[in-house]
This record gives sequence, C-alpha cells and structure tokens, in this order.
Amino acid sequence: MKLKVRLYDVDASEPRVVIRGDDCRELGVKQMDRVRLDAKTSQVIVVAISDSLVKKGEILIPKAIISKIGAEVGKEIEVVYSPKPESVRSIRKKMDSVKLTRDEINEIVFDILDGKLSKIEISAWLTALQINGMDTEEIAFFTQSMVNTGEKITFDRTPVFDFHSLGGVPGNKITPVVVAIVASAGLMIPKTSSRAISSACGTSDFVEVFCNVELKASELKKISEKIGGVMAWGGSMNIAPVDDMVIDIEYPLGINPRAQMLASILSKKLAISATHLLVDIPMGTGTKVKTLEEAREYARDLMELGTLLGIRTECAITYGDQPVGNAIGPALEARECIKILEGNAHPASVVEKACDLAGMILEMGGIPDGPTKAREILSSGQALAKFRQIVEAQGGKKDLTSDDIVLGNFMHEVRAVRSGYVHHIKNKDLVTIARAAGAPSDKGAGILLFRKKGQRAEKGEMLFQIYADNQAKADRARDLAIKLEPMDIEGMLIKKVPNPSALKSI
Amino acid sequence: MKLKVRLYDVDASEPRVVIRGDDCRELGVKQMDRVRLDAKTSQVIVVAISDSLVKKGEILIPKAIISKIGAEVGKEIEVVYSPKPESVRSIRKKMDSVKLTRDEINEIVFDILDGKLSKIEISAWLTALQINGMDTEEIAFFTQSMVNTGEKITFDRTPVFDFHSLGGVPGNKITPVVVAIVASAGLMIPKTSSRAISSACGTSDFVEVFCNVELKASELKKISEKIGGVMAWGGSMNIAPVDDMVIDIEYPLGINPRAQMLASILSKKLAISATHLLVDIPMGTGTKVKTLEEAREYARDLMELGTLLGIRTECAITYGDQPVGNAIGPALEARECIKILEGNAHPASVVEKACDLAGMILEMGGIPDGPTKAREILSSGQALAKFRQIVEAQGGKKDLTSDDIVLGNFMHEVRAVRSGYVHHIKNKDLVTIARAAGAPSDKGAGILLFRKKGQRAEKGEMLFQIYADNQAKADRARDLAIKLEPMDIEGMLIKKVPNPSALKSI
Repeated sequence: MKLKVRLYDVDASEPRVVIRGDDCRELGVKQMDRVRLDAKTSQVIVVAISDSLVKKGEILIPKAIISKIGAEVGKEIEVVYSPKPESVRSIRKKMDSVKLTRDEINEIVFDILDGKLSKIEISAWLTALQINGMDTEEIAFFTQSMVNTGEKITFDRTPVFDFHSLGGVPGNKITPVVVAIVASAGLMIPKTSSRAISSACGTSDFVEVFCNVELKASELKKISEKIGGVMAWGGSMNIAPVDDMVIDIEYPLGINPRAQMLASILSKKLAISATHLLVDIPMGTGTKVKTLEEAREYARDLMELGTLLGIRTECAITYGDQPVGNAIGPALEARECIKILEGNAHPASVVEKACDLAGMILEMGGIPDGPTKAREILSSGQALAKFRQIVEAQGGKKDLTSDDIVLGNFMHEVRAVRSGYVHHIKNKDLVTIARAAGAPSDKGAGILLFRKKGQRAEKGEMLFQIYADNQAKADRARDLAIKLEPMDIEGMLIKKVPNPSALKSI
Repeated sequence: MKLKVRLYDVDASEPRVVIRGDDCRELGVKQMDRVRLDAKTSQVIVVAISDSLVKKGEILIPKAIISKIGAEVGKEIEVVYSPKPESVRSIRKKMDSVKLTRDEINEIVFDILDGKLSKIEISAWLTALQINGMDTEEIAFFTQSMVNTGEKITFDRTPVFDFHSLGGVPGNKITPVVVAIVASAGLMIPKTSSRAISSACGTSDFVEVFCNVELKASELKKISEKIGGVMAWGGSMNIAPVDDMVIDIEYPLGINPRAQMLASILSKKLAISATHLLVDIPMGTGTKVKTLEEAREYARDLMELGTLLGIRTECAITYGDQPVGNAIGPALEARECIKILEGNAHPASVVEKACDLAGMILEMGGIPDGPTKAREILSSGQALAKFRQIVEAQGGKKDLTSDDIVLGNFMHEVRAVRSGYVHHIKNKDLVTIARAAGAPSDKGAGILLFRKKGQRAEKGEMLFQIYADNQAKADRARDLAIKLEPMDIEGMLIKKVPNPSALKSI
C-alpha cells in the first residue's frame, strides 16, 4: 500500500510510525504491529492513531527513519505488513519457563539493541526473566550476546584484574583505594564504574569530583597499560550498550532480574578482557542482598558463570547493614577516600574493607599474604603516589590532596534529642535525604555521619551533618531527615536542634 | 520546581510530559517516573528527552492534560515528583506469585483505566498473570473490578440468558440462530458480541452486513425487553472498557492470560446482568483450546467462577478441528446463517451446533428436551420470524432474505491438483487467506469451502473459492492459498488452476 510521507516530529525511543486506523485495516496491521517501508528498511513499529494526527493516505515517520531510508516528505512510500520478529516467540517460551538456546537469546538481545522489540515486549521479557529466571548456561550465552552488542577492549598485557561491587550500601568509596593498591603491586586493573541510578553516589559520581572519568576506550587502554590502573566511567565507552536500554525498562518496574543483573556485570568485565574478577557482595537489611544464604547463592552463581566465561572469579561477602565509612555524597566521599590514601586511619571500616578486598586481588595475582601486603602498600604511601599518577593521567590536579575537595556551602546539623545508643541506621532513608540535598548531581551535597551503629550519643551531640549546594535543598533534606529519622537511638525520635532557620519547623 | 508550559502535540496513549534530562535530575525524576502538575492533577508519566525536543526550564504537556488542569501555554507551572502508584507494588507481588487482595486487584484495574500505569507496567502485569495466574477468588474480584470500570445494564425482566464462544474456530456463525431460537421460546437473551481481533470475522462483523450492531445501552435494553433478543456489538456500549485497553497490550505479546480471559468474558456478562450463561468451548488443533483436558479445565473454571459471581454457568465443548460450516468472512457467513434460518439443512454442522447449544439454554430456562424443541422452533419458521423482528428493530431490511446478501465481485477458485481425501484443514491458514482477501473490513471478502475433512475430491474438483471486493486482494489471497496449502489432500500440494490472470504465477 502506498502512503504519503509526513514528518513525525517526535523523539520516540522506539522506531514508530503513525497511520490512520482505516489505512491500518486496509494494510492488515493493528496498533503495535510492524511494517516495512519501501521494502528496504528493517521493521518499524506501527502505532495507529485515527483522525487527530494523521490524514487518510498519509504516514508519519520520525526524522531519523526518513533519513535512514532516504525517503522524501510529501512523496509516496510503499508500506507493507511485516510479521513479529522471532524473538517475540522466544519471549513467550521464557514465559513458559522453557530453556532458551544461544541463538534465541542472541536474537532477543540484538532485537532490543536494534529497536525491533517494543517496550511492551522488553517489559514482558524482563518480567518473564524475573519470574522464571535462566540457568547458568543461558546466562553465559546472554552475557556473551550483551558483550557483542558493543565495543571490546583488549590489552597488550595479561592478566587483567577487575573488581565489582553489587552495591546497595551507601558510602562505599573503596574503589580508588583498591585500584591504587592493586596497581602499586604491579597488577593491571582497568576499572570501569557506574554512576548512581537510584543511590546517592556511584563511584564515577565521586571520582569525577577530582578528575575526568569520561574516557575513550583508547585512553582507558593507554592509562591502564602505562600506570596499571584507571578509574573510568563505563558509560562513556560503548560497552554492552544494550544494558542501558534494558535498565530504562527495569527502573519503572522496580525489578532487576538475577539473570539480567549477572549478565550485566559479567558482560562489562568480558568486554574489557578481564581474566580475574573479585566481586564484593554487600549484605544487610538495606542492601540488595539481605541474607547470608542469598549472598552465597550470588557468589556461587558468579563463580560458576565466571568459569563458563573464562574469568577466574572470587567473591567477598561484606557487611552492608550501615554505610561504609562516614561520608555519603560526591565531594564528601572523595575527601574521605583521599584522606585514607593520605594515611588517615579513619574511618577504619573503609580502610579495612579496601585492604581486605585489594588483598584478595593480590592473592589472585599470586602475591602471598595479600591483605598484609595491601596494608603495607597503603601505609607506605605507595598507594597515594599511584593514585595521584592515575588522577593526573585522567586530567586531575597534580599532587591532589584531600584539602582540594570543596564541600557544599549550606549545612544543617542533626543532633540527638536524647542520650542513648544508635541501634539502627536506615541506609535507604540516608540515600533519600542525600538525594534531596542534591546528590549525586550537586557535587557538594551529601551526609557526614558522626555516629555509627552501636555508638553512644549524649543528648545534643551531633548525629550527622547535611551538606548542600543551595539553601532550598539543604532545608528540604533537613525536613526529610526530621520526618524519616534515619538513625534509631534507643527507639527515640531524632530532631534537628540549633539552626535558626529551622525553628519554625520544630 | 517551576517549568514553563509548552504544548506537546502528540496523541499519546499514555499521559506523558517531556522534560529535559538536566531538569529531570534537578527534579529528582527519571525517565518513566511520575510527576504531579500544579499539585492538583493526578499523576502523569514523565519521559525525559534531553536537548532535541524541549528547552531547559520548559515542559511539554499534551493538549488533553493542559485543558484538564487549566494550565496556560507559556506560563509557569509547579512540577513535583510523585511516587509510583501502589499498584506497581502489587504487580511485583504477582511476579512473586503472591495472591492479591480484592483492593489490590481493584487498584490495578482502575490505575489501568485512569492511565496511571504505563504500558511497560501493564505488560509486566499481563506477563506475570500469564506465568503465575490467579485463583478463582482472585479472578472473581478481577471480574467485578472490570465491571465497575464501565456501564451496567439492568432489565425489567429476569432471568437474563447469555451465550459466549471462546472462539478460535473460523466460520462459527451460529449466534443469530441461537438468539432467534432462544428468544422464540420466550427467554430473553440480550447478546453482545465482538468484532474480529485476529480472526477473519467476528459475530458483529457479519451481523452488521444486514443490520446495525452499534446500539446504545438503552436500545439494547428496549429491543431485548420487547422482542426477547438482540445481536449487538459490545464495543459500542461502555461495558468493561478496561478490557480493550488491556487487549492492546496483549496483542503484540501474543498472549491471553487465562485469568484475564475469564475475567474479560464474565465481566461482560455481569455488566448486562446475565443470570444464566452458556459457554461454547471449541476444541481442536487450530483453536485456543487444544485438548479435552484443557477444555474441561476451562469449563470447571468458568462454572466455579460463575457460581462465585452469581451467574449459573454451563459449558459445551464443541468440535473445532475445522471451520464450522462452509463460509468464512462477513457476507458469506451472513448468507449461510440466514439460509439456515430459512430452513436450509446445510451445512449440517452449523444446524446441529446451533440447535444443540440453543437447546442447552432452553433447558437452563426450564424447557424440557431442549435440543428437540430448538429444532422444532427452527424448522417451523418461528426462529426466522423472530430473527427478522430483531433485524428490523436493529435497522435492517424488513423481511430480509439470504438473497439480499452481496458477496465480493472478485473470485478465484482453488481446485485439487490430484484425487484424494481431505485429511486436514488448517484453520489458521484459512484465516490468513480470508484476511488477505480483505476480511473482516471488506464485507464481501472471504472463503467458501466446497470440501470438508474426510471428504473426497477428484483431481480438478473445487476445494474452495476465494471472494474479495477488489482484484488486488483476490490475487494476494490466491497467492497465499497456493503458498500455504490450507487443505491437505493425501499430503499432496494444492494449486489453483483455471483463472487466466493466474497463469503467470503457476
């Protein structure tokens, strides 16, 4: 059927055209069916909207598709029905809990990448994955397909070490310390990290406070090979790009299917040619992994999957019941992290976690007595020197110190309204407050904890400070802190005390 | 946060606004998150598109929402983050196979109706239903919620009889015959039917060949109470409207979760106050229900559900391995159906099915020996008279006869290329061919079968005719028939023979 091309001036995330309802009937297509244009394009998804937007005999086509197929606005184009891609059938198989083949999984992954699957179909796929899951072999195929959607980076050196945290615990700023220690020991660790999705601060969010994290693949390769370590944002390279497309659908559903999560982690490691991988699994009430049993299951899956993919994988189950260290938010975490590299022994939880994990990587690299060696490298100043080399290579300040980090100018103090012990800290509420203060996009925003679990606070003593880059957000975060009470002190409420602007709200 | 209103000139099926990525970060919302506008609207879904469509500090809002909230283009509006509706949490519960409460189900149904759930979320809901299902009590709650989304019709008379076919078998034109017999016997049967979604011809598609099916609720009530029967299109009344919104998502996924299907059927019956219901369950390789076991399960579910909802429900499992009768397509089915009412004994399969099912309804209404009584009503001409009364009441021709029905002007014959027995007829392929010929929107289009299963055809004898309203579609359908071979004759191919325009394609 011939239809006249008109411009569809919308930046839709799916390739879709608009045709009137009666023309659709004529074509034999229904809403969300697919058509081909001029018999030379791949499929596009139809959305049929009668009357209001499009006239009879016309078709609205987004600009990107018009230029891709070389169509001309105002001219006629041949439009034909095109059946659903085979991958829709594979999605239905997964709904029936059938094991998928390598080819079926590969087709789904590439159809998502190419925009051949609609959001409705991707949502059904993720829901089926969430409910019916995949076995390890399927996840391995899935991982390889995801790697193949993007760029692969190979190095002149081998082995290639890598490190990943499942996340979910606030204040987990150990990555630069781990990278600096491992690289100081002569092992190469081209570490890519992510930005926060729903957390207060991802590794890349605080590293970019003091250096550039948006590296090209060639820069990542060069710095890693020369200095031994790098701290890049994974998103700036075209690594497993299909992952981000999927996250956009997972997020509104609030799900993260285990198969997808594992394939997502491993695909990024496979793409940078990792041969050895350590995975940190924070465990605790406020994190993704709630129980030891669940953590062990993740560890088993990851190690089995690593074996299938040729990556020697070890796991560390770590304490995630409360934030790691005292700082939450980009500048605050950057400062705390650099202080530790400068030799500061506090917060001990950060030093300990970083050295223990770095130590495990050293041992994977054949260096005996890893944790002790890691502590030596840190206390000797070697790690700081290596860290500064990396920062400089990534365009940061030469001889960076923790004093170079600027915190937010607006601060509220939150103090104990009675004496007692902190017996619970709610990770999620701290994240909500830090985000209300502006983190992660406002670099100065966040929370600095003065008490951790089990510590005593006398009435009127500081529990935490809220930092922000402007007054409105500082106030908003403080109001939330009063409402949410993120720290339980013997079951009593927390209220803010001495800030004048807060008097009205108490 | 204040943003300047601009018109979003798109007829989106979800209420969505467009905000730039950086403004979204400022607001703390992500793509597919929700916002409230001016604190007085219900939620709308955000889609964040940076740069191309919208400027910093601006928000694109669809016309419908602008007028609903009384906003003004060019003026500022307060935009605030709004959390996901509770129903998203209930959808996740269903993913975890948790039984939902009446309130949770009701919330999901009304959030779909009100556009508060995105297509991604509805897709996840349907996928979870497809995989994890619902128990009968949940389906009963679901059905009641669906009824409450639309109009309810009550009658001055009771009992109210109804009839439904699960469908999936082509040529199932028994409804007018059943309605006419039942109404002739003095029982009231206000029958609503559907149009084809993926089939070649729904009941409403062929009934509207000879009378108006788009009745208002008041007309349906009046005609039913006066004449005893009606043959209306359910879609023209506002009955359980949420069902259609869901079908739009089911269709691209190619799924029809049992819970949704059962709730969909029963909600339409409950909405027209049915007290007695007969469900036809066609069973066979080409239909929705493949095995006797599956059919019995549907029957059990329907009867149990009927009991919970206060509708006395009986089921008939019928033969669906091949088309019912010989005609497929609107005009062809209309003609075959009227011929039977006029006393034609052929095709016997249609007469038999219609009388047996009508007989079951008569017995539900306390009339003994139903099938015999039904045959008497049909052969005496009472059913024809009643049918004509209904047709006239629905604006059709007075004293309608089968000769009034006009078939398509373009016809191809398909003949046997060798002698043998028809040992298989593929329902789905016949549907595909009939749709290619233009059915159901081209009223004259369809297929007329000259052989059914088990019958012998000598080489060169007619197997079926293809009708169409124009030459191109007739040719397209014939080409498909040659390709698909919908009838197996001792395993040999079928080819079209004597049409001159086809010479080039043989």
